[in-house]
Amino acid sequence: MSESFNKIICGDPFPGSKRVHVEGSKHGIRVPFREVALSPSRAEDREELPNAPVRLYDPSGPYGESGATCDLARGLSPIRRAWIEARGGVEERESMTPPRDGGAPPFPGRGTKMFRSKRGGNVTQMHYARKGRITEEMEFVAIREGMKPEFVRDEVASGRAIIPANVNHLEVEPCVIGRGFLTKINANIGNSAVASSVEEEVRKMIWAIRWGADTVMDLSTGPDIHETREWIIRNAPVPIGTVPIYQALEKVGGKPEELTWDIFAQTLEEQAEQGVDYMTIHAGVRLATVPLAANRATGIVSRGGSILASWCLAHHEENFLYTHFGEICEIFKSYDVAFSLGDGLRPGSIADANDEAQFAELDTLGELTEKAWRHDVQVMIEGPGHVPMDKIRENMERQAASCHGAPFYTLGPLTTDVAPGYDHITSAIGAAMIGWFGTAMLCYVTPKEHLGLPNKDDVRDGVVAYKIAAHAADIAKGHPRAREWDDAMAKARFEFRWDDQFHLAMDPIKAVEFHDETLPEPGARVARFCSMCGPKFCAMKISQDLRDYAKAKGLAPGEALHAGLEEKAREYRDNGEKSREKEVRRKKLEVRRKGKRN
Amino acid sequence: MSESFNKIICGDPFPGSKRVHVEGSKHGIRVPFREVALSPSRAEDREELPNAPVRLYDPSGPYGESGATCDLARGLSPIRRAWIEARGGVEERESMTPPRDGGAPPFPGRGTKMFRSKRGGNVTQMHYARKGRITEEMEFVAIREGMKPEFVRDEVASGRAIIPANVNHLEVEPCVIGRGFLTKINANIGNSAVASSVEEEVRKMIWAIRWGADTVMDLSTGPDIHETREWIIRNAPVPIGTVPIYQALEKVGGKPEELTWDIFAQTLEEQAEQGVDYMTIHAGVRLATVPLAANRATGIVSRGGSILASWCLAHHEENFLYTHFGEICEIFKSYDVAFSLGDGLRPGSIADANDEAQFAELDTLGELTEKAWRHDVQVMIEGPGHVPMDKIRENMERQAASCHGAPFYTLGPLTTDVAPGYDHITSAIGAAMIGWFGTAMLCYVTPKEHLGLPNKDDVRDGVVAYKIAAHAADIAKGHPRAREWDDAMAKARFEFRWDDQFHLAMDPIKAVEFHDETLPEPGARVARFCSMCGPKFCAMKISQDLRDYAKAKGLAPGEALHAGLEEKAREYRDNGEKSREKEVRRKKLEVRRKGKRN
Repeated sequence: MSESFNKIICGDPFPGSKRVHVEGSKHGIRVPFREVALSPSRAEDREELPNAPVRLYDPSGPYGESGATCDLARGLSPIRRAWIEARGGVEERESMTPPRDGGAPPFPGRGTKMFRSKRGGNVTQMHYARKGRITEEMEFVAIREGMKPEFVRDEVASGRAIIPANVNHLEVEPCVIGRGFLTKINANIGNSAVASSVEEEVRKMIWAIRWGADTVMDLSTGPDIHETREWIIRNAPVPIGTVPIYQALEKVGGKPEELTWDIFAQTLEEQAEQGVDYMTIHAGVRLATVPLAANRATGIVSRGGSILASWCLAHHEENFLYTHFGEICEIFKSYDVAFSLGDGLRPGSIADANDEAQFAELDTLGELTEKAWRHDVQVMIEGPGHVPMDKIRENMERQAASCHGAPFYTLGPLTTDVAPGYDHITSAIGAAMIGWFGTAMLCYVTPKEHLGLPNKDDVRDGVVAYKIAAHAADIAKGHPRAREWDDAMAKARFEFRWDDQFHLAMDPIKAVEFHDETLPEPGARVARFCSMCGPKFCAMKISQDLRDYAKAKGLAPGEALHAGLEEKAREYRDNGEKSREKEVRRKKLEVRRKGKRN
Repeated sequence: MSESFNKIICGDPFPGSKRVHVEGSKHGIRVPFREVALSPSRAEDREELPNAPVRLYDPSGPYGESGATCDLARGLSPIRRAWIEARGGVEERESMTPPRDGGAPPFPGRGTKMFRSKRGGNVTQMHYARKGRITEEMEFVAIREGMKPEFVRDEVASGRAIIPANVNHLEVEPCVIGRGFLTKINANIGNSAVASSVEEEVRKMIWAIRWGADTVMDLSTGPDIHETREWIIRNAPVPIGTVPIYQALEKVGGKPEELTWDIFAQTLEEQAEQGVDYMTIHAGVRLATVPLAANRATGIVSRGGSILASWCLAHHEENFLYTHFGEICEIFKSYDVAFSLGDGLRPGSIADANDEAQFAELDTLGELTEKAWRHDVQVMIEGPGHVPMDKIRENMERQAASCHGAPFYTLGPLTTDVAPGYDHITSAIGAAMIGWFGTAMLCYVTPKEHLGLPNKDDVRDGVVAYKIAAHAADIAKGHPRAREWDDAMAKARFEFRWDDQFHLAMDPIKAVEFHDETLPEPGARVARFCSMCGPKFCAMKISQDLRDYAKAKGLAPGEALHAGLEEKAREYRDNGEKSREKEVRRKKLEVRRKGKRN
């Protein structure tokens, strides 16, 4: 690991934002938020009216906290240890995973002991919720979401929401995924045989959550899968997901037909010991349904789905994930690993959307949801894919019905196939819509989709596109807190509080960079125009004048302007004249300071 | 104008694409398309099956045609002259516009004679359509859209569609805007007092249509408005729109209250003589409705709207565009300028969406639509703005009802306010949806929205985001030709025809650039994987194997796999083994050629 690796972005909040915490009822519950302080509103010649700071949901962990120190070789603080130990029900024991050879350096800071439930025990959040218990994790997310803890407990107990928090991921700041809460987004990282390194993947995780990813999936298929994941989890304040079949496939030299239940079960235990919070399990790829995909335009586009389909065909047996599903539940309940029931038969093209193969798998996932719930194991359901807009609602309705309200977690969907290089946009459209219809988490797509492995810029573009989709969905759903953000931005915009606009932005750094491209001078930050229209044509400027005038004259909305308007009109022209002259003088000053004409 | 100005992008089709033309029934009707040739499909050890080339709509004019020569000082070929002269009804006469001083160089190539209808005449496409006549323009667009000319005539006659084609814009390759046709997009260009030049704006126009803009609006508010526009129109193969109130405001030194009908009428004539195809007229900003916007979160965000609102308030009189509307119609019918009835009171924030001010204006626009139609003047209706997803459908429904089916032309809408720097995405979401619901044209938004004037990269990003929205809408609407594009791409993707994927892409240059970032070697273009998953994990690769296997064994979709599967399974494992070894060898070759491990 390079020397510079440990000196990563740490303690670097966005400009104008700071980290605040809200304390819970128990020790150690400190819920993080991003708080944006705003300048007061100041109409000309009038007193200042303060603007309350805006508090925003923030998954970036200590990396977004000024003054935080991060030593990646030590990992984050194990904030949940006290909660888990107090709850009881677990024992600490030696890892069952044999040490590994070669490749990436092992994570130095952890030791070899892990938590697991006592024999026959069940430590899932759903289990506690169904016993009427409000855990520290539930209280944490309740504060985070602005909801009551009892509401959280009820949603988790019913299966409509999940809190992915493996007992071995002590560093996670809990989050809740469910349609009754803010729409979440996931970013994928992970190496492949062709690209990337452990260091790069950890940086990507930290980068992804900086921009707003609520969970991160490590989809590594290349070398050092175990070590990469360890470094990631120990430094991740967000839930981490994986697709265990990839590592299992590596263990059998890349030959799907050599996979066995035993190898897979070992892989599950190994990953659960590390603290993986949720795992994609393609148990819906059934022997009888695989042929339904044979004549599709793009076949099977899920890596895991294609691996399991190969296995079924090679053995002419039912998918072993399906036949051993109960045993998977036994493992998961011992650690509180949540299912992400995989959509191995999702459509990979507009042509294949909503076909028989896709919905046959969905029906199986519904059956498996109930089975998992009998073990009190948490479940979310993965979804498509490529779906034209007119077929999106059907997906949501069918999933809600088939899967008894379990949270839906879609990949997009992409609404057209023809724009590789821009699939974060083709899919943000579908993701926003399906989020509005009730999807709980949206898995991001980057501009590199269909073309290659994403780099840092791609990760940022993908995350921001998906935060947009998720937030647009929250507004459309009428989430009580969603609009506060937009209203604060609109007010700052109308009042030309430029710095406030930048600070409030989803990406404050890009916002200021773009503005300053044409108007970099400090004076521009109080200018009542930007380079789009200039001072004479700025509609906001003119319309502010209108509003101030209407208010000053005591005109109420809808009031006829006819009464006594002659005089008012004359006053207005005079005021307007003075105001415009002032603007023109200010603009001339700007140009002079700039020293050149653009 | 700089020496390099005239040496601009000309004769530069996208890689893998070429310009083809389809001839119409009359001389001079040559309808352009972008044609993408595809490689044959080639399964291993099997014969080649050819893939028909894909023909795509293309607004880029001669600039997208190999071997074309473009001299910007001469302008494009006046392809419509023969049609207009043959139709009669116009006379050529001296321009009424006085010569202008200083600033940018005048356009050298045009001369001083312009077309106008004979006294009392009417030369609009709607007028001809209502007389049962199919003009060359109607036939042109029918071929372009793959529709029958009679259908086009009927849509234009009824007002459900418009063909914006001023008799003085002889260079335009006609296009049709209406919900029964492909969804169109508009790009905005134009300088402001703070940024840009004539040369820059012409380049932007050519750049915008290269990426797919169907029309371009010149929204210049800075110096040299007339000259900038002349250079643009003479070199534009697409319809050009303007907002004449901007130039009128310049003529009165930037003081809204000094605007008069006479000055405005002169401006209309001046711009119509140049060949402006459609003009935004904010005749819906009524004296009585302006106060409805007084207490909005973001007031009036339309430049034109705020100018007219100022005028109304200053004079306490009804908007002169409303009172003189009939006279505007008289001018427009003499040149065939189409109305773009402006949404001066559109919402500029989520908080203001669908409010009283907005819909009061829409009702007026409906009344004005009927008035314009009594003059056979073509009309489209501008729309919002900032609208959360759950309020979008209402906009479409109200517009369709209030405006009697006239085409809707929205700006986005943006579905959230909080992501400046990414408003091409916040609005592509709304645009795709409202396009699906029936909006005929979508006005683009660039990443610079709310921050400054867009540069070339911003224009490209905005255009592609909107082409995505428009095409996603066409698919969702079930447009018969839309899916051909996606299906061709899906097939190329499934068969690893990488060059075909790049050539078919909406942005072929970015697609290949992104792919080659991690796999630049020529061998990668025939590789059955990319760097996302590598050779072992490529789902498409595995699933191709599955499909080939199923086909070879005569398995039909849905057929049970159980019959005789033991033997089939054994064969599959053998085939799979050989196939994988081949891939691994190929991959090792790739890596060796690359010379280093990524």
